[in-house]
Amino acid sequence: MRLRNNPNAMDILKENNNLVVLEPEKHRGKWKELFNNDNPIFIEVGMGKGDFVYGNAQAYPDVNFIGIERYPSVLAAAVNKINKSPALPNLRVIKFDASLLEEIFAYGEVAKLFLNFSDPWPKSRHAKRRLTSPQFLDIYKKVLDNDAIIEFKTDNRLLFEYSLVTFSAYPMHLEYVSLDLHNSKENETNIQTEYERKFSKFGPIYKAIVRY
Amino acid sequence: MRLRNNPNAMDILKENNNLVVLEPEKHRGKWKELFNNDNPIFIEVGMGKGDFVYGNAQAYPDVNFIGIERYPSVLAAAVNKINKSPALPNLRVIKFDASLLEEIFAYGEVAKLFLNFSDPWPKSRHAKRRLTSPQFLDIYKKVLDNDAIIEFKTDNRLLFEYSLVTFSAYPMHLEYVSLDLHNSKENETNIQTEYERKFSKFGPIYKAIVRY
Repeated sequence: MRLRNNPNAMDILKENNNLVVLEPEKHRGKWKELFNNDNPIFIEVGMGKGDFVYGNAQAYPDVNFIGIERYPSVLAAAVNKINKSPALPNLRVIKFDASLLEEIFAYGEVAKLFLNFSDPWPKSRHAKRRLTSPQFLDIYKKVLDNDAIIEFKTDNRLLFEYSLVTFSAYPMHLEYVSLDLHNSKENETNIQTEYERKFSKFGPIYKAIVRY
Repeated sequence: MRLRNNPNAMDILKENNNLVVLEPEKHRGKWKELFNNDNPIFIEVGMGKGDFVYGNAQAYPDVNFIGIERYPSVLAAAVNKINKSPALPNLRVIKFDASLLEEIFAYGEVAKLFLNFSDPWPKSRHAKRRLTSPQFLDIYKKVLDNDAIIEFKTDNRLLFEYSLVTFSAYPMHLEYVSLDLHNSKENETNIQTEYERKFSKFGPIYKAIVRY
C-alpha cells in the first residue's frame, strides 16, 4: 500500500527502535538471538498498517513475527497504530525492500511467509513486480526452510488467477485453496488485515497455501 | 446429471445408431476409421443433454467429438435434442461409464477431455467418485496423448477448490484458470452447457485447463 508521504516517518521509526529493527542486515542468520528464543520465525511481506502481523503475534506467542514494509510512511503509520496496543515481545517490524530479502535472512531462517493483498500490478509489463511472480518465488526460496509454506490472500481475481498458474509452473505445490475465505471453514482462524475488513464486502477473499 | 428413468431410453439409443455408437469397445484404437479422417478426437465425460458437445462439433468441424454419458435416460434426452438440429459428421455419443474409459480408447487416442459441471459428490467418503479425483486422473492418463489437456468447468466452489489441490498434488500443470469465466476474456469463445445457461446467474463459473 501507499500513503501520503509523511516527512517525519523516519524519525518515528528511529524513536521506536524497540519495535522497529533499524539495521536488519546485522541480524542475518541470528534473528533468534534478537528474540532470545528458538521459536520459528514467520514474516509478512508488505505488512501495510500491521493489523495482520500484530493479530498473529498476539494469537501465537510461541512464534516470532517480523513485518516488512518498503514505504516509510506506511510503516510509521503501522508503528503509531501498534503503539496503541500492548507491546508484544515476539513482534518486530522492518522498513525493507522484499527483493533484497536474502540480505537480511539466511537460508532456512524463515518458517512461513505471508503475502496479503499485495499490489496487483495489473499491466503485464509489470508482472515481475507482483509479489507472487517467479522472480519473487526465487527470492523467497533463498530464505525459507525446506518445509516452509507461503500463505497468500487477495481480493484481486486476476492477481489470484495469475498466482495459481505461476505457482503451478514454478512448480510449487498447492496445499490449500479457498475461493471465498470468509465463507470457508478456515475463516474461524482467519486474522484480517485492515484492507480485508474494508473490502471483503465487495467480493470474495481468495486464499492459497503453497510449498516449494 | 440424472433424469427420471425413461423406459424407452435404450430403444431411442438403438434407433439412432448413426449418432449413438452402440458397441464402443469395438472401435478402441481405430476411432479415426469411424470418422473416416485423421482429425484429433476430443471427448466430453458426462455430456448431460449435449448442448456443449454439439456446440463444439458445430464450431470446430475439423475436430471429432465424442460425448460420453453413463445414464441411458440422460443420453436418450440428449439424442432427442440433438436430432432437432442438423446432423454433424464429426459428432458421436456413447452410453458408457468413464471409469472404464481405457476399454474404448487406446493410449494417446484422445487429444482433449472436457469435464463440465460434474457431480460434486460433496461427502468426503465419496471423493473418489468426483471426476477430478486422482483415481479418475489415472484413468484419463491412459487414453490421452502426451500433449493432451483437460478442460474443466464448474459452478461448485468446493469441487473446484478440491480439484485445484488434487491437480497440484497429482501433479498436473495448471495452464489456465478463471475464477469468473463469464467475466473473463476467454468467455468470447465459451460454449455453454444447458446447466451453465441456467445457473450462471447465481454465482461465478470456474474454469481450469490442466495438462499431465
